[in-house]
Amino acid sequence: MAKDSLPVSPLAPKTMPVLPPIAGVKIGIGQAGIKYKDRNDLMVMTFDKGTAVAGVFTKSLTRASPVDWSELVVARTKGRARALIVNSGNANAFTGKAGVETVKQTIAGVAETFGILAKEVMVSSTGVIGQTLDASKITKILPNVKKQMSGDLWRDAAAAIMTTDTFPKLCTRQAKIGERAVTINGIAKGSGMIAPDMATMLGYICTDAAIPPAILQQLLKQTNEISFNAITVDGDTSTNDNIIVAATGAAGNKLPESLTDPLLRDFRRVFADVMLDLAHQVVMDGEGAQKFITVHVTGAKNKKDAKTVAMAIANSPLIKTAIAGGDANWGRVVMAVGKSGAYAERDKLKVSIGGTLIATNGMAVQGYDEKPVAAHINGRDIVIDVDLGLGRGHFTAWTCDLTHGYISINADYRS
Amino acid sequence: MAKDSLPVSPLAPKTMPVLPPIAGVKIGIGQAGIKYKDRNDLMVMTFDKGTAVAGVFTKSLTRASPVDWSELVVARTKGRARALIVNSGNANAFTGKAGVETVKQTIAGVAETFGILAKEVMVSSTGVIGQTLDASKITKILPNVKKQMSGDLWRDAAAAIMTTDTFPKLCTRQAKIGERAVTINGIAKGSGMIAPDMATMLGYICTDAAIPPAILQQLLKQTNEISFNAITVDGDTSTNDNIIVAATGAAGNKLPESLTDPLLRDFRRVFADVMLDLAHQVVMDGEGAQKFITVHVTGAKNKKDAKTVAMAIANSPLIKTAIAGGDANWGRVVMAVGKSGAYAERDKLKVSIGGTLIATNGMAVQGYDEKPVAAHINGRDIVIDVDLGLGRGHFTAWTCDLTHGYISINADYRS
Repeated sequence: MAKDSLPVSPLAPKTMPVLPPIAGVKIGIGQAGIKYKDRNDLMVMTFDKGTAVAGVFTKSLTRASPVDWSELVVARTKGRARALIVNSGNANAFTGKAGVETVKQTIAGVAETFGILAKEVMVSSTGVIGQTLDASKITKILPNVKKQMSGDLWRDAAAAIMTTDTFPKLCTRQAKIGERAVTINGIAKGSGMIAPDMATMLGYICTDAAIPPAILQQLLKQTNEISFNAITVDGDTSTNDNIIVAATGAAGNKLPESLTDPLLRDFRRVFADVMLDLAHQVVMDGEGAQKFITVHVTGAKNKKDAKTVAMAIANSPLIKTAIAGGDANWGRVVMAVGKSGAYAERDKLKVSIGGTLIATNGMAVQGYDEKPVAAHINGRDIVIDVDLGLGRGHFTAWTCDLTHGYISINADYRS
Repeated sequence: MAKDSLPVSPLAPKTMPVLPPIAGVKIGIGQAGIKYKDRNDLMVMTFDKGTAVAGVFTKSLTRASPVDWSELVVARTKGRARALIVNSGNANAFTGKAGVETVKQTIAGVAETFGILAKEVMVSSTGVIGQTLDASKITKILPNVKKQMSGDLWRDAAAAIMTTDTFPKLCTRQAKIGERAVTINGIAKGSGMIAPDMATMLGYICTDAAIPPAILQQLLKQTNEISFNAITVDGDTSTNDNIIVAATGAAGNKLPESLTDPLLRDFRRVFADVMLDLAHQVVMDGEGAQKFITVHVTGAKNKKDAKTVAMAIANSPLIKTAIAGGDANWGRVVMAVGKSGAYAERDKLKVSIGGTLIATNGMAVQGYDEKPVAAHINGRDIVIDVDLGLGRGHFTAWTCDLTHGYISINADYRS
């Protein structure tokens, strides 16, 4: 795997947060030796009884057995799962009946080791597609994993689920529900195959807040749309992506009655902040990424059109290579708007880069000075604004540039 | 422009055909000095009275003025245009009212020089977006262009319309309509921004056959779907693409009465052959291309689904980089099927590469031997077969691999 030897992304956060324990959550890690040598590749989380869980899962029609299973667990337990096991190195995807068997043996092992029911155990896998995953490699180390379970292993957990990631992705925030302070911790992995129409990565968020499963599921789905579903690295969607949220309730706050209950106002804001921070970290670790790109689209006929245009720009290889080369080739932005399929009128379009208005009314601004734009495009944080001049639909998408690094990493991923 | 100094694509045809004159078609070329130095950047074709023309035009909503205009010409003259003028180096796209003015002055110049009506003159432009194109550079050399008009300048014409192309694209074939032999010549350009949902390049096809404009238009549209609309380099669609067909009627064949007239059987087959040959040449000149990739999809519920899956595979950066690296990473093919949005069932899917069945029934074939596949993937012509096992829908798409060359060319296109 080429990226093993690659340096940490230049866009990685300068400091890594230390995540506090979440009452009701225990974490274990271990070396199952699935693919990687001398590193952890297994992570287990257990949740105290009464924990609410929610999940969003890849919409891929060729998705992996663990994803099928975990979605079932969330549905069948009505959001009351008790454990999560995640391995890296093998996605257990496109592995047919053998893949289903691997999931069965894995959940049986977790159930036996931790004294819970197999139907309460969620599973995620990430790594190479199409190779059978030997469950015994996982189950045989579970007793050892259990012995070292702790509330403090967030960083190790984030590292254990990495594949081509160059840094572990962690985030923690405090929120208030009524007078009660609650904590939200999140970890994520992902650096390629990042695109909608799903989280297209793995993300696990835990909180000690008490939130009923149905409300937690609504919150996750809604927030996912403007965070993980608003990022893209290469337009490719994985077979294994999912995001799981667990709320243990240990903070003992008053229970919200609905998603719009004013009691949840601060929590919702902070929850979105955690999701967005993790999603941005995934983009910052985009394979070969040298620049972080924000695409704001406003003035669309509706939100759907705004998202279509934002994603067309964020996914355009021509725009992403131009930015990699420090070239403010705004004509390609116009091209992407035109090809997106969303409703647009050429002569109402406005394009700005780095806050400088470049084009309006279907043509370049008179006396447009490329200097400030060139300076901006040679920086690390690139902002593209497109106003369609038609309505009030808006959407923001995030992506990274397309560089030689992406090619190098993906041309010999399996070698 | 980086590619100016790049070597000819390794996928370029070994020999370049010599195109015979087409009775009723004259070609002129010239140096307008729009962007390039010391090379032709202008091409004019005139058609004898009675010539039928047809066109397909980019569906981009931010398309350029020349495209708007040429589509109008075909419609207003009911397929009886008399001339075509094409420049390279500047796309006259997103140039607002100035762009419309450029078109007006250009067609006026052609009309005056060649003694035809301005409303009979089609215009195409290709090159950089967003820069005003000075029509006087074009019009002032028209008298000189006219002096050297000839029926033999096909190769020069194909070269004059090149931008990032590394070789001119030409094709000629003979067909029969009844007892009458007719010739079909075609030239094309394009190497980036190649994707549906349009020709996404420039293509000009001329024949001495006599075919009514309405039938010619039907034929072009139908053939375009399985040729230029079935190729992709980077999923990006240009603002300027169009394909024009001109049938002078000089061969004097019996007029076909409809597209399905048996009289046209051979012509239709040969016409499709010319379109496909040119489309393939565009892929072979894909920016940075080292390998030519054919994606056959069969067994889809319907043709639309088959095309969706074929294009998802052909556009996947992860598949294209894996092939560039000589890596038979078939798991990414499964991923692309899943993300495509077309109906698929994981456990009915079959994937073959280079004729070797790799996966079936939702998993890898027992005892799958990667050696012949690895040998195939290290060659230049890559064939991927996907059978969805659901119905009779099928589609074939063509693309090239995604290499460091693509990044290099596009990161500094304007510099």
